[in-house]
Amino acid sequence: MTNLKNFIREIPDFPKKGISYKDITPLLQDPKAMDFAVDLFIQKLNNQPIDIVVGIESRGFFFAALLAQKLNAGFVPVRKKGKLPAETLSEKYDLEYGIDVLEIHKDAISKGENVLVHDDVLATGGTARAACSLVERLGGNVVQCNFLVELSFLNGRQQLSRFPVASLVEY
Amino acid sequence: MTNLKNFIREIPDFPKKGISYKDITPLLQDPKAMDFAVDLFIQKLNNQPIDIVVGIESRGFFFAALLAQKLNAGFVPVRKKGKLPAETLSEKYDLEYGIDVLEIHKDAISKGENVLVHDDVLATGGTARAACSLVERLGGNVVQCNFLVELSFLNGRQQLSRFPVASLVEY
Repeated sequence: MTNLKNFIREIPDFPKKGISYKDITPLLQDPKAMDFAVDLFIQKLNNQPIDIVVGIESRGFFFAALLAQKLNAGFVPVRKKGKLPAETLSEKYDLEYGIDVLEIHKDAISKGENVLVHDDVLATGGTARAACSLVERLGGNVVQCNFLVELSFLNGRQQLSRFPVASLVEY
Repeated sequence: MTNLKNFIREIPDFPKKGISYKDITPLLQDPKAMDFAVDLFIQKLNNQPIDIVVGIESRGFFFAALLAQKLNAGFVPVRKKGKLPAETLSEKYDLEYGIDVLEIHKDAISKGENVLVHDDVLATGGTARAACSLVERLGGNVVQCNFLVELSFLNGRQQLSRFPVASLVEY
């Protein structure tokens, strides 16, 4: 059994003093560990059908594309303000200081579609909650939010209490 | 035979007046067309062995992750300045106005490794050339640069003349 934590390194004081950043690039560089992680994500879905996998910019794109391929689902990027070229819906979310905005294409999801929302790390949950809200505003059904890494001391699941949450590695 | 152009829509005047943006999100949403595109990328490699697939931030991440999985290779993100947490090499490249900087982790590629460099669109080629330069500075061998879309009127291949280039769709 692969221990995914062996492929995640902690970088002290990044992006700023006092934060121990969870760097997943060693995992990305190891194809066997990647396959293992993708299979684990799939298991945690318990055969629930998925039409669309939403990946959150930009580190959420790595696994979201792989999960979409594995699930035979469409891939939809949720991006920062101004990056998506066609008509969008947008949703604000709180940062430590100030706010930020996520956007989704209006034609990305159809009413009733089953959606998996993915990001690499669950921290405070604000970003993922904004992404789930975008999905619901388009009529999609959030089947699960999944994350490679969960920083459980930040209580991100509280913000996502309306949604099933899965993660592969906890700190 | 799937015509990939049917899955790419042109958005007039994005990101600014006079530019016809090639939006690949309809392709990303179609799992069959995605599989077709990935297979085509693989064909164009002609069985050359690949150790690492480099994806350029951030739209290059979609296919780079899929290609790495298919090739049983590692995936390495090349990112904008300040995003990668560990020790990096950086390389400047010209924008229309001013310059920008790409970075790669110093331990991302080992001497002699065979590398595929991927981005979604080949425009002027400056970004891809900077990525190839980072790969070479780490001792990697750029086997090919591939792109979903090539804007051939911008002559990007000129900047990449030292490297084999492949693209799936040309405008």
